[in-house]
Amino acid sequence: MIPQPSDNPSHRPRGEQRLIDAIFARLRPAADPALAVGLGDDMASIVRDDSLVWTTDMLMDGVDFRSGEHDWRTIGRKAMAVNLSDCAAMGVRPVGALVAVALCESLSMGDAIAIHEGAAAIGEEFGCPITGGDTNSWISPTVISITVAGRPDPGTQPILRSTGRPGDIVYCSGPVGGSILGRHLTFTPRVELGLVLARLPAAAMIDISDGLALDLWRLCEASGCGAIVAQEAVAGLIHPDAVALSRQSGRPAIEHALHDGEDFELLAAMRTALDPAAAAGLGLTRVARLVPERGLWLETNDGARRPLEPRGWEHFR
Amino acid sequence: MIPQPSDNPSHRPRGEQRLIDAIFARLRPAADPALAVGLGDDMASIVRDDSLVWTTDMLMDGVDFRSGEHDWRTIGRKAMAVNLSDCAAMGVRPVGALVAVALCESLSMGDAIAIHEGAAAIGEEFGCPITGGDTNSWISPTVISITVAGRPDPGTQPILRSTGRPGDIVYCSGPVGGSILGRHLTFTPRVELGLVLARLPAAAMIDISDGLALDLWRLCEASGCGAIVAQEAVAGLIHPDAVALSRQSGRPAIEHALHDGEDFELLAAMRTALDPAAAAGLGLTRVARLVPERGLWLETNDGARRPLEPRGWEHFR
Repeated sequence: MIPQPSDNPSHRPRGEQRLIDAIFARLRPAADPALAVGLGDDMASIVRDDSLVWTTDMLMDGVDFRSGEHDWRTIGRKAMAVNLSDCAAMGVRPVGALVAVALCESLSMGDAIAIHEGAAAIGEEFGCPITGGDTNSWISPTVISITVAGRPDPGTQPILRSTGRPGDIVYCSGPVGGSILGRHLTFTPRVELGLVLARLPAAAMIDISDGLALDLWRLCEASGCGAIVAQEAVAGLIHPDAVALSRQSGRPAIEHALHDGEDFELLAAMRTALDPAAAAGLGLTRVARLVPERGLWLETNDGARRPLEPRGWEHFR
Repeated sequence: MIPQPSDNPSHRPRGEQRLIDAIFARLRPAADPALAVGLGDDMASIVRDDSLVWTTDMLMDGVDFRSGEHDWRTIGRKAMAVNLSDCAAMGVRPVGALVAVALCESLSMGDAIAIHEGAAAIGEEFGCPITGGDTNSWISPTVISITVAGRPDPGTQPILRSTGRPGDIVYCSGPVGGSILGRHLTFTPRVELGLVLARLPAAAMIDISDGLALDLWRLCEASGCGAIVAQEAVAGLIHPDAVALSRQSGRPAIEHALHDGEDFELLAAMRTALDPAAAAGLGLTRVARLVPERGLWLETNDGARRPLEPRGWEHFR
């Protein structure tokens, strides 16, 4: 259901997932099969003999932020926060970061420092100091690439996206949709919640970076199953920003909740349902259940079911 | 001697070192003082309680490579190789990599795969598989940011750039200058030699990424000392490419040897001189000695000495 471009390598990459699959096909044979967390999850193992994991995210001016509208400190904050959200999605504690930048030559030294200050400040909130990086300038728009390492708390393990199975109950950590109105820059990564979920433990987790439907589909694909999403539950998770955005877009607010990216809430699959009071205490809403058939469906309370496209934000669309 | 721009943060950053210093001044208070390898070396510790280190390097089209002239596989190779060279400079064994890309939308899927293949192939040569990454597209030139982790062999420690001291003898691992003619894309990172030097052990090390003079100066500054460079020794290290380039530039070949970037040879400071046969066996040439006074000097065999500017490749010039 993801756009399927030709496999012909002379064609432009359309469909990020397709490109990633092609790259993985090349890389997988060389990957160490003993790595605890391999290719394709929110983070990967660094070395075999410990449980340190790492992740990298690259943000580009005009794509992930707009330097004409957003201040550099906020932009630097986001560049770190998206990586911390990957830590949340693995249920690990962030421990350190590297910051690489290609700064547009129009930036002042103050702008350059502000990027690092914004990244450092939210990193420090989560115990994740910047320990190094790479500083470059060029004439094109600014690029910020941050790498974060994390490790599970004692007695826990990284929670994979590939370990869901039919029957699991999927919870969402908060309202979604319309983050483009501003929350994509100011969200708080769910690191603490991720650590709690790793202790329960959750059966599988992913963060909503590209949309509830698309990221749930990714969790399902990695786990070799599908999911039925409860329409009324999603209706209850529509963020006020999704309502505001639907007035501008003319599309139903629930579509924004299902398909908008950059909410950075967690989707956690639990082997058994949480006690409702415990779920509420954690801010978790039951939103879907995993099923053996591959694919996504949206189901109403009266049992009517229709296919749900795993649309969301993808590069190379 | 590095260009000294104003500290006024509204000014454009000129002088990469100056910007890095300003960023470090902001970051250092939050950095964990117990980290074995802190800010400002070729690599940094990831966590306190082990000796895993990491580094990141970002390459941009038009700055570090030219997509119109170079093939994508070679470009991907370079993006990985510069990180492996940082491992060489620390005397550690690379263990894994993350690859983040912002691909210009004009690239084909084959181009995108070629970048990863080139990076993966040289990574695998050095036991450094790609374990994850981030794939993006945009309308600006392509950016490749790779992060590599490494760890010291048993019984060794990462070799810092800050642990040189007056009296140390500095060796260079090979001929330098004129790498822009092609070697900057095809060089072999000195990983194995770095591991040998870590076992000796070397007192301090750095790789020549931005120029012999500039990187030697960085080692000296980090170590709180200076260096006297033997002019005849450098004359013996002039690469044929430096000679060829001097014909084009009209500048003496030794200037290219001293100030050109991207040779990716090692500079290793030894507390005592190596046995000449052992040095020759390792391909090491004695090139300088560290002295208490800050700064660099070039000295001829007859003892005449003149200041040597730490010029080399710097962003924000």
